[in-house]
Amino acid sequence: MTETYAFLGPRGTFTEAALRRLPGAEGAEQVPYDTVPAALDALRRAEVDAAVVALENSVEGSVPTTLDELATGEPLQIVAEVHLPVSFALLVRPGTTFADIKTVASHPHAQPQCRRWLAEHVPDAEWRAATSNAEAAQRVADGHYDAALAGSFAAARYGLSVLAEDIHDVSDAVTRFIELRRPCVPPPRTGMDRTTVVAFIGEDHPGALLEILNEFAIRGINLTLIQSRPTGAGLGSYLFWMDFDGHVEDARVGEALMGLRRICADVRFLGSYPRADQVRPEIRRGTHDADFTEAAAWLRSIRNGHA
Amino acid sequence: MTETYAFLGPRGTFTEAALRRLPGAEGAEQVPYDTVPAALDALRRAEVDAAVVALENSVEGSVPTTLDELATGEPLQIVAEVHLPVSFALLVRPGTTFADIKTVASHPHAQPQCRRWLAEHVPDAEWRAATSNAEAAQRVADGHYDAALAGSFAAARYGLSVLAEDIHDVSDAVTRFIELRRPCVPPPRTGMDRTTVVAFIGEDHPGALLEILNEFAIRGINLTLIQSRPTGAGLGSYLFWMDFDGHVEDARVGEALMGLRRICADVRFLGSYPRADQVRPEIRRGTHDADFTEAAAWLRSIRNGHA
Amino acid sequence: MTETYAFLGPRGTFTEAALRRLPGAEGAEQVPYDTVPAALDALRRAEVDAAVVALENSVEGSVPTTLDELATGEPLQIVAEVHLPVSFALLVRPGTTFADIKTVASHPHAQPQCRRWLAEHVPDAEWRAATSNAEAAQRVADGHYDAALAGSFAAARYGLSVLAEDIHDVSDAVTRFIELRRPCVPPPRTGMDRTTVVAFIGEDHPGALLEILNEFAIRGINLTLIQSRPTGAGLGSYLFWMDFDGHVEDARVGEALMGLRRICADVRFLGSYPRADQVRPEIRRGTHDADFTEAAAWLRSIRNGHA
Amino acid sequence: MTETYAFLGPRGTFTEAALRRLPGAEGAEQVPYDTVPAALDALRRAEVDAAVVALENSVEGSVPTTLDELATGEPLQIVAEVHLPVSFALLVRPGTTFADIKTVASHPHAQPQCRRWLAEHVPDAEWRAATSNAEAAQRVADGHYDAALAGSFAAARYGLSVLAEDIHDVSDAVTRFIELRRPCVPPPRTGMDRTTVVAFIGEDHPGALLEILNEFAIRGINLTLIQSRPTGAGLGSYLFWMDFDGHVEDARVGEALMGLRRICADVRFLGSYPRADQVRPEIRRGTHDADFTEAAAWLRSIRNGHA
Repeated sequence: MTETYAFLGPRGTFTEAALRRLPGAEGAEQVPYDTVPAALDALRRAEVDAAVVALENSVEGSVPTTLDELATGEPLQIVAEVHLPVSFALLVRPGTTFADIKTVASHPHAQPQCRRWLAEHVPDAEWRAATSNAEAAQRVADGHYDAALAGSFAAARYGLSVLAEDIHDVSDAVTRFIELRRPCVPPPRTGMDRTTVVAFIGEDHPGALLEILNEFAIRGINLTLIQSRPTGAGLGSYLFWMDFDGHVEDARVGEALMGLRRICADVRFLGSYPRADQVRPEIRRGTHDADFTEAAAWLRSIRNGHA
Repeated sequence: MTETYAFLGPRGTFTEAALRRLPGAEGAEQVPYDTVPAALDALRRAEVDAAVVALENSVEGSVPTTLDELATGEPLQIVAEVHLPVSFALLVRPGTTFADIKTVASHPHAQPQCRRWLAEHVPDAEWRAATSNAEAAQRVADGHYDAALAGSFAAARYGLSVLAEDIHDVSDAVTRFIELRRPCVPPPRTGMDRTTVVAFIGEDHPGALLEILNEFAIRGINLTLIQSRPTGAGLGSYLFWMDFDGHVEDARVGEALMGLRRICADVRFLGSYPRADQVRPEIRRGTHDADFTEAAAWLRSIRNGHA
Repeated sequence: MTETYAFLGPRGTFTEAALRRLPGAEGAEQVPYDTVPAALDALRRAEVDAAVVALENSVEGSVPTTLDELATGEPLQIVAEVHLPVSFALLVRPGTTFADIKTVASHPHAQPQCRRWLAEHVPDAEWRAATSNAEAAQRVADGHYDAALAGSFAAARYGLSVLAEDIHDVSDAVTRFIELRRPCVPPPRTGMDRTTVVAFIGEDHPGALLEILNEFAIRGINLTLIQSRPTGAGLGSYLFWMDFDGHVEDARVGEALMGLRRICADVRFLGSYPRADQVRPEIRRGTHDADFTEAAAWLRSIRNGHA
Repeated sequence: MTETYAFLGPRGTFTEAALRRLPGAEGAEQVPYDTVPAALDALRRAEVDAAVVALENSVEGSVPTTLDELATGEPLQIVAEVHLPVSFALLVRPGTTFADIKTVASHPHAQPQCRRWLAEHVPDAEWRAATSNAEAAQRVADGHYDAALAGSFAAARYGLSVLAEDIHDVSDAVTRFIELRRPCVPPPRTGMDRTTVVAFIGEDHPGALLEILNEFAIRGINLTLIQSRPTGAGLGSYLFWMDFDGHVEDARVGEALMGLRRICADVRFLGSYPRADQVRPEIRRGTHDADFTEAAAWLRSIRNGHA
């Protein structure tokens, strides 16, 4: 049975490039969707088996739509991540020169990552928003705009030429993509895992964020991303998206998650999955699985009268 | 001497509406700028005396451009805030009916706040991005698009009709705007003040966020906003924008800020200013100015041998 | 089968008075021992079924011998506590007047609790140490000393008169006694329980005390006694005796104890038992047994793929 | 002018031996007092210039009388400390053999430090309490008891013989003595200093101990002794004697002390003085005096409008 992957289209986006890096996606059917919500809803309705979307970018930060769509609605689960270096190409219709460029289109996320480059190379061009970089390329192809910032892999698809490559204001910029599935048993532990949760803090609990961080800190768990988002229930009401080292099967992670569950108005588990960068975190003394097992055995023994 | 205020234009945006609520803006010259960076740079170059921009919205969250522009570059300082209820109107050329609407334009921030309303009332219309709601209105006026989501106050300026009003998916949605000045002595304490700082955490200091929150917690200072943003130096390197209760002249705030300064790679002070909602925070015992004064006097006395 | 209780003798001490308050001691054989270690060793060797000793006094503090003997050696377990108001009588041979008193004997613990009274009423008398107040009474009876500070109940036993009663510098002084057994299943939960542990902190773990207190604090567990004692391994090496609210069967107590076990070089469980003062502690939200049960069920469900 | 030092007498105690190690005591008049309170009161009344008393022992723990007398009453201040190895001699009248010994006298603190030795060498001898080891020696000299545990230096003074030397159950046992003065400017910083305070916690402030430890922890200050004592106001009401690294003139210590002052019902400063063991503590980054100075300058500058 061939699997089907949804991704933020059209074809030619960085998301499609990320999808191709996933081992499971080889040979799978790959279906572009117009928006992140559309791709996720297709997965929720079981029209596809998986969905790949961008989560955060080292320059522009997290992608609000992705965070918000995953924090609410029918639960989905992250099962893999891919890190893709960010590097844009300036795509034009064949024959276009720098002097011809009056308008440059791109997804709003691309513009701030190339701001300085644009100011230097096409200072007089106006920037235009597109719903994706690939759409920007399409609209260059159809004559709407003069140039598009997109992945160079998009040029062939739209019959465009690459006028400049390797465009980025910040070197080493990286975008992080995630593969989502419907809720499932998480992929097995590798010792180099990341876990994602969303914590909802009730308004009547002002110190909750400190308590949450404490639950991680006392068990030596390192947060790799913390991102606040409004819940829509008024200024001052937030949810926190948190990525941290470790796997839900780790004893220290399990106990910390139960702590969050008791502190928070709600906690949504969004998955445990291998870190794309394969960094192996150091485990603090007293927080290995064996330490939790020994402590639990000791507790049982004193409860049974064997002090 | 008439003062000059920059704001995110064009005329007819919510930002202009917010600006009009500022007492100091009455009688001032009001100059629209195309982008947030343009408005802030005009202030930095002293071409204007103040600038008003949106900081966060209770539905869409903080405005990344505003955060990033204020966290870096020449320092600016927040001296006031305004909260504006969010409510859109659907503006059309006179004579247009719901059935005629094929495209709806707006600033990308407006769309998610009206998503459900749009799906219900103009389910077949396509959404188009504009650099501002006012620009969307302009492009409706010039025939580019059929309808615009904007403030109803924008209709008259662009010769449009209001087809629907009071549009918002979430009732009680609010946008928070700030008035910026070049660095100055903060406005005097009112007892209902807010302070904003940006904390940069070095990569070699993983527990720094917990330490920072602790500096606030031990002095009973309540955070009202915490927002992480990438610094651009790679995934995992963040700055934290933090709003909290109190004024830089409060002893507890002063000591907490010194604590942050010692913990962080860098701290940027972005101002102390009256809360728009005039909420008076409770001050925890032992953290009033008088407690700090007494403790300092006691320390002096024991250092001088009068135990 | 009649049970046998060891107590710190001789007959006529406050410890015997405390023992008589224990429901289980009625009808039991009561055997005096010369020293706390002797009584505890008799229990360890199973020569008696229980032992009653003093643990702390609201004026003089904890009894070092009791702490040290229970922190080390074969484990014993506290199954009950008794609070006894402290009030001494001045016992003399019949016919003795205040003017005749040149020496007053007592256990070293009694003297500081009556210092001011002695200075006022028998300013010229010298104080003499005895191994117990009852022994002091005995040595008054045999003519060694002129007066003894002891419980008035000791007068009859030694043929002495009560020259003054209700002697104490501090009103409301209380001594806390404990009943010890060999390790056993703790008495059932009453909701008004106390638990005692001894935590040994390795020398290479300077922040351990703060970590320990944090394990209690995050679960809303209130410490009622914390007492440091040297371990004998050099200045700076300590154990901590800790009494706190709750029962080892409480989920919050169980998890906190496992935390201590993981932090500390060693933890000795010394029992859960009803509070003598029948104070019912408030349980903080999120720390009831039901909260732990719900969180554990949730963790199981997400581990099994039912997010 | 010759200075006068009070010490816990009689002559021949370990306290006198400790006093002799103090540079300032050379050539000073040395006056024995019967009790710790008597020595301290003489200092308070200015009858002497300094007083030397034992504070804690690595086997027996802190000396309750010393803690209690310094925590209350007219304030006194620690200006120096001396660590003295604990080693007892068994002093007897010339001609006495082990077989002759029916009674061994000592201060109650000496007995537990020699318990095992006594059980092995004079198993049938009874122990008798004396108000000091030197008094025990005196009462051996006058025929009351057969042997005394005391410093070997006491033998000559009382015409006794040393039957055994170097007696101690725990090797490396150390007693810590302190020199007290009336309140004065503390001795200058050496970088290897210790500071002592007593913190009184109000009954209505259950989490205060954790808050206090936090004030030290966030500034990297290491506690070397924490000792709870009842305040006399009922079970559950405590004061905490705390020794920690650093000098009251250190910025991090000053700010931590002000924090304690704001948290606690009362704080008594008992002095900053050079550590006898000359251990130099590591200073955590961000907590050097220079860091505090820089942070204070920054705070002044932002308060003055120079962000």
